[in-house]
Amino acid sequence: MTARKAIVLVSGGLDSATVAAIARDEGYEVFALSFDYGQRHRLELDAARAVVASQAIRHHAVSVIDLRVFGGSALTSDIDVPKHDHVSDIGGGIPVTYVPARNTIFLSFALAYAEVVGASDIFIGVNALDYSGYPDCRPDYIRAFEAMANLATRAGIEGHQRLTIHAPLMQLDKAGIIRRGTALGVDYAQTLSCYDPEPPNRACGHCDSCLLRRKGFTEAGIPDPTSYAGT
Amino acid sequence: MTARKAIVLVSGGLDSATVAAIARDEGYEVFALSFDYGQRHRLELDAARAVVASQAIRHHAVSVIDLRVFGGSALTSDIDVPKHDHVSDIGGGIPVTYVPARNTIFLSFALAYAEVVGASDIFIGVNALDYSGYPDCRPDYIRAFEAMANLATRAGIEGHQRLTIHAPLMQLDKAGIIRRGTALGVDYAQTLSCYDPEPPNRACGHCDSCLLRRKGFTEAGIPDPTSYAGT
Repeated sequence: MTARKAIVLVSGGLDSATVAAIARDEGYEVFALSFDYGQRHRLELDAARAVVASQAIRHHAVSVIDLRVFGGSALTSDIDVPKHDHVSDIGGGIPVTYVPARNTIFLSFALAYAEVVGASDIFIGVNALDYSGYPDCRPDYIRAFEAMANLATRAGIEGHQRLTIHAPLMQLDKAGIIRRGTALGVDYAQTLSCYDPEPPNRACGHCDSCLLRRKGFTEAGIPDPTSYAGT
Repeated sequence: MTARKAIVLVSGGLDSATVAAIARDEGYEVFALSFDYGQRHRLELDAARAVVASQAIRHHAVSVIDLRVFGGSALTSDIDVPKHDHVSDIGGGIPVTYVPARNTIFLSFALAYAEVVGASDIFIGVNALDYSGYPDCRPDYIRAFEAMANLATRAGIEGHQRLTIHAPLMQLDKAGIIRRGTALGVDYAQTLSCYDPEPPNRACGHCDSCLLRRKGFTEAGIPDPTSYAGT
């Protein structure tokens, strides 16, 4: 029997590496999808390629899109990335690192890729930690995207295939994600979470993403393989 | 009072030129959005710029995206564009010129642009003629995208702004669109509908899009300003 195909959004971070491993563990043939979207650093894309290679995923599309044309985020423009010493210092509300409509854009490309390769499953690594700050990481949003997607495509209009958006990390905290991925053999040394890394893949250790990652490994009781600057 | 802002998807074709004129007529400050998405011809983008200039629209973002990475359509890959002599020769079902998830991708970028400039209205030129063949031109699809969009954005989560997707051509046929645009002063000589044009902006006259356009002008009883090859 031929494996079912799934599109997995792979950013190079810890979360999406875990999601790729989950999709493989569930028996899907994984089609990884990454974006070159004017990130401040390209190290993220290098990490995505390393994750794909380390999991022996054979299909990897990297789509070039330009979000800088709109501005509006510290990840794609010249706003400073906020740095802190402790997780408790991370501010409330929507972070300045929020990229407008990013998950909607990424899922839209995944939808196109799914239609072309004949996949009816898309995996995305949104999770409970992001839930509080990013509007497009909430369960209601994921279900609304799925409903729209089932009206958007050839498969939808012809009624022979129902598309499902999987967000298997939704209810996990960072420690839970790390435990799940470790059980599946994910090599987190290949991943990069930092918003402001140094080449080749050293994390700053103090941006919101680094703080949450460090706390996750500590809480999971699993050694953190990340290379941090100044350590 | 400051004019409300609207994002208008402008392709360079007849439909979106009409939509831009409608948005302006309704009092919106128009932010035009076009895409450089690996079209087989760049003449479409030239036409988009000409439409924007002819309507004195001051804001125009052109976003580079790569749909070719997925393949799957005559508009972005090497499948031949079908040619016919009469509208009645156009086949049923979903045309080979259908680009997977295109409107979803385009609307997602419009959503990002809207969030950045503070617009709560997006205009798209989908219409009844496309309805039969393209899944992402149906009213149900547009409403589902709108519902998703209102969960996707900062404005949505903060509850202070409801986003509306306008599809003012939805119930019009091509002749109706041409009549409406002509009444609003649209210069259709600036627009390009052809799937397979010759430089600088000569239409082939025989692709599905040309046939529907020619029929529209005839039915509207309005002289067709299009430059056709071999005429």
